[in-house]
Amino acid sequence: MSPSKERWDARRQDVSAAVWRVMATRGFAGLTLRAVAIEMGASTGLLTHYFPNKRALVVYALNILEERTHGRLRQAPPAPGLAALRTALIDILPLTPDGTANNRIWVASWDVALADAELGADQAARYEGIRAKLREHIAVAQERGELPGRDGDDLAAAAIAFTHGVVVQTLFDPAAFPPKRQVALVDRFLASLAQN
Amino acid sequence: MSPSKERWDARRQDVSAAVWRVMATRGFAGLTLRAVAIEMGASTGLLTHYFPNKRALVVYALNILEERTHGRLRQAPPAPGLAALRTALIDILPLTPDGTANNRIWVASWDVALADAELGADQAARYEGIRAKLREHIAVAQERGELPGRDGDDLAAAAIAFTHGVVVQTLFDPAAFPPKRQVALVDRFLASLAQN
Repeated sequence: MSPSKERWDARRQDVSAAVWRVMATRGFAGLTLRAVAIEMGASTGLLTHYFPNKRALVVYALNILEERTHGRLRQAPPAPGLAALRTALIDILPLTPDGTANNRIWVASWDVALADAELGADQAARYEGIRAKLREHIAVAQERGELPGRDGDDLAAAAIAFTHGVVVQTLFDPAAFPPKRQVALVDRFLASLAQN
Repeated sequence: MSPSKERWDARRQDVSAAVWRVMATRGFAGLTLRAVAIEMGASTGLLTHYFPNKRALVVYALNILEERTHGRLRQAPPAPGLAALRTALIDILPLTPDGTANNRIWVASWDVALADAELGADQAARYEGIRAKLREHIAVAQERGELPGRDGDDLAAAAIAFTHGVVVQTLFDPAAFPPKRQVALVDRFLASLAQN
């Protein structure tokens, strides 16, 4: 007997919350039907009605992450061009507990994404989406003379590379990378881009 | 009955090779006693003599990765200072199939490392080790007037951030980041550091 659509929708919030808590504490390697069932106080049998296997659970988890990432309040860019590029990069950093949780789960998801062609292609598309958004800000910054007229895609790849590299170091050593230092590193990087 | 030290040493190569193949294809999320046993053509029961649980297997896998990373032939720096910094960064990039496999497994290991305090501390120490090594090159480059006299730890954190960010984008989209482009991105980044 498969559960009805109504019951699934009603359970969805509980399942999402449980999946999120398991991911945040145990990562994707620890994201199992059993762990989510225990977190919800439900049986593994119930969970298998919704998720036939671990991969289905991982896909669901990545969708929650995507929704949370796009759904959260972001800073409005103070001005177009270089200032908007700066805001977009700062917005990615783990400056708050919520930002840290999101980033932890993103970085953790790279393990399963690298081992699964379809999830890997999704992640590649997500990166291209981020670069495309940054390219818009870069193009405006170039029009305004705030950035040199280098290849926009190289500048976008460089900007997200730098930012994600700061994210990963911060996740492993938050004491060494307090918010102020993270922002200062990004600002210094942008100053270098602007001059070269 | 626990296997003797001699038998374990004899088996070690087989186990290492099987663990490496499982990590490269399935990531840490797919690294299970069962998967390694199948890869070796052995029983799960045999494996549990060596690894009481998944965590023991993961710790072993990380040790193999560490050994492989330190054991492989690296390019000798052509000159001290900025050139040596460049060589150290280029050496990290996934420019060859071997370099790609190493990086895939490192990036994949961040999932388990973020979910385990002890493994996370190991990873933080590993990052600090990388930055310390880069700081030596940076200090020489500063003495030689090849880099500005900014905080060496910030420069090292920036250099490894940028490089690892290029690594991650390349792993997900190798067609968009052929070796030549990866190297050009690092060279442009270093040129920016030198001027600012």
